[in-house]
Amino acid sequence: MTVEIICVGTELLLGNIVNTNAAFLAEQCAGLGLECYYQTVVGDNAARLSLCLQTAMDRSDVILLSGGLGPTEDDLTKETVARLCGRELLLHEPSRKAIQEYFERRGIELTDNNWKQAMLPEGCIVMENHNGTAPGVILETEKSKIVLLPGPPGELVPMFRESVAPYLAGLTEKVICSQTVKLCGVGESKAEMMIRDLIDTQTNPTIATYAKTGEVHIRVTASAQDSKACGKLIKPVVKELKNRFQNLIYSTEEDATLEKVVVDLLRANDLTVTCAESCTGGLLAGRLVNVPGVSDVLKFSVITYSNKAKRKLLGLRKPMLQKYGAVSPQTAEEMSRGAAALAKADVAVAITGLAGPDGDGEEKPVGLVYIAVNVKGNVTVEEYHFSGNRSKIRESAVSAALVLLRSCVLEYFSEITFGKKK
Amino acid sequence: MTVEIICVGTELLLGNIVNTNAAFLAEQCAGLGLECYYQTVVGDNAARLSLCLQTAMDRSDVILLSGGLGPTEDDLTKETVARLCGRELLLHEPSRKAIQEYFERRGIELTDNNWKQAMLPEGCIVMENHNGTAPGVILETEKSKIVLLPGPPGELVPMFRESVAPYLAGLTEKVICSQTVKLCGVGESKAEMMIRDLIDTQTNPTIATYAKTGEVHIRVTASAQDSKACGKLIKPVVKELKNRFQNLIYSTEEDATLEKVVVDLLRANDLTVTCAESCTGGLLAGRLVNVPGVSDVLKFSVITYSNKAKRKLLGLRKPMLQKYGAVSPQTAEEMSRGAAALAKADVAVAITGLAGPDGDGEEKPVGLVYIAVNVKGNVTVEEYHFSGNRSKIRESAVSAALVLLRSCVLEYFSEITFGKKK
Repeated sequence: MTVEIICVGTELLLGNIVNTNAAFLAEQCAGLGLECYYQTVVGDNAARLSLCLQTAMDRSDVILLSGGLGPTEDDLTKETVARLCGRELLLHEPSRKAIQEYFERRGIELTDNNWKQAMLPEGCIVMENHNGTAPGVILETEKSKIVLLPGPPGELVPMFRESVAPYLAGLTEKVICSQTVKLCGVGESKAEMMIRDLIDTQTNPTIATYAKTGEVHIRVTASAQDSKACGKLIKPVVKELKNRFQNLIYSTEEDATLEKVVVDLLRANDLTVTCAESCTGGLLAGRLVNVPGVSDVLKFSVITYSNKAKRKLLGLRKPMLQKYGAVSPQTAEEMSRGAAALAKADVAVAITGLAGPDGDGEEKPVGLVYIAVNVKGNVTVEEYHFSGNRSKIRESAVSAALVLLRSCVLEYFSEITFGKKK
Repeated sequence: MTVEIICVGTELLLGNIVNTNAAFLAEQCAGLGLECYYQTVVGDNAARLSLCLQTAMDRSDVILLSGGLGPTEDDLTKETVARLCGRELLLHEPSRKAIQEYFERRGIELTDNNWKQAMLPEGCIVMENHNGTAPGVILETEKSKIVLLPGPPGELVPMFRESVAPYLAGLTEKVICSQTVKLCGVGESKAEMMIRDLIDTQTNPTIATYAKTGEVHIRVTASAQDSKACGKLIKPVVKELKNRFQNLIYSTEEDATLEKVVVDLLRANDLTVTCAESCTGGLLAGRLVNVPGVSDVLKFSVITYSNKAKRKLLGLRKPMLQKYGAVSPQTAEEMSRGAAALAKADVAVAITGLAGPDGDGEEKPVGLVYIAVNVKGNVTVEEYHFSGNRSKIRESAVSAALVLLRSCVLEYFSEITFGKKK
């Protein structure tokens, strides 16, 4: 089955916003096993939207539209689709009531144009919007299924997951399910090499790798008569992936992030953590604070950008800094020791490096970063060479620090298990 | 003149990457005064790409294509365009030489397929690529001008600025120039209201507002026979905007960011700065560290997530914390005083708030944030109510802190000028 995505909005045509809806819908459709060959962006203009719709209806089974369901005159996606399909717009009483309640709860006065959002094409399937006022619409015509979604990602994403995904899954005789295996600490090409034989012989389930910053995701997708049968097909493949990648896998949960897994690992082992950041300037702590409830493990953290701060807060000695320089394995190690002592934390991560655009005037190249992880006094230091501009280097350093932090904590506990430490 | 954007790449159709190229090209074209009615994404497939190209050539004067200029079999944008326009691909000697030198400089061995990138359509205009190996191409046909750009943003963006923008500007008899006036500390609707009369009577130059997180940009675009004449049209409008918005304008430079302007302001006044962050967890320091050379003003910064950290590092007293709570104007003020003392910094910014998803169990709502700015002992505290999810609230808080920091420093010096402080 083929699907096509049309995003409606003048702000997209003017480049005021980046089209994250298209990327989300495309990724979801690929996960459902649908073939997507075209994406289009068109403005809030009835004639041009009609043209795009007509073309899409001639070549695709399913058309996903986002945007243009708002209450103003500019919003005309629903009106245009209805006209093209020869359907009347009728007042949909449950939607009218939902809109009224939405405004009453917020104590906001309704204006007349709000009722426009309750006018829906006759014979359509209505999808409730729990995060806004515009209901979603599915219109089934002889040629194609047309799905209308609201433009704001905060409304589109949950509506897709709740209503559209099950609908699309139900269109085929078969069910499509997938599971993502998330790796860190390994590059995409190496990961692919390690499972080349599996990829080459794949039929059902299929196996695909996706590179993310500092991570690789492997998606295993099966198609079968029901989800139980899909699970049976996926399970042995995921088992084999676990067998091959071992600890490089940080999660097989759909909504897990690397920082969440790291925070959970620390919490499960009753460890507190602190960071001492130089070139990343707070972004590592910022990633950890992404995780709700991080306060159980992160009490505080410091950004020691200058040498003076490294000396004053972390107790580094001047001769050492002069001898090795601020960007050195020795400085990274001492920063991690100083941070652990300052914060009285079990684990400390220190980052020092050159994010550019200028070098340090000496022989050290831009992109050189040292990361030290101190787990209860056991310090591991790694050297990295990142490429890209200043912000890319800093982003890569933060991802690498999370990966190293995770592996050092895992290693510490595996060594304890083997009786080396206590 | 109309322009249309076609982005080629299977990774876009699969949703593996977000289409930032389309947003960049669209914004640039709008800035050049070109009308853009359609954007399309299509995979690396000759038949479907031909179809899209044909449609675009029938309706638009200029077609911008990105992607598919690489050395592999998959990359077929150039080949498809050449075939459709009836042009041969010929070896372009300067490009061949540039590719050879590119690899030699990096000590990488060339593979045979690399030469494919030096095969260019006969009669085309060649654009040098200073950041990769694929040259850009402009093909002028009777119907339209077709511009081929490499897919990686690090190559596409500089090539557009260097070669495509001047080419497009030269296509019209008139020159189009624009200047952006960047505001902070005011919402888009209020900003629009303050210049409603100017917007309503605009013809040349045109005036458009754009909302960014915590900022509003106003773009003034003029069209005239040359850039000098454009400048003459733009100047009085910018002067009027400066007159109306005064200190709400933080820059009129194209490449200025709010954090850069703040760092420059601090440096110009010989002030050092430090941050004490709670809910933002390092993101404010991270924004400041975006600016190269920030080490002149930012020596260090702390993330005091727990109450214990606030007490230990910043010297807050337990009874005060118990009486007012961690999220309170009193705590924000004390944090800013403690941070300034700890870092011996002239200016300290403190942020404390509830980023959610859960509240504090008391009556304080998610999204409540207090920001304190301490300029040499003069503390200003502001209360904010942000909406959105955890990351949106934190991002809004960081922007608000930069805005407040800037206005407090400006106010401090304006009061000095008026003789209130010394």
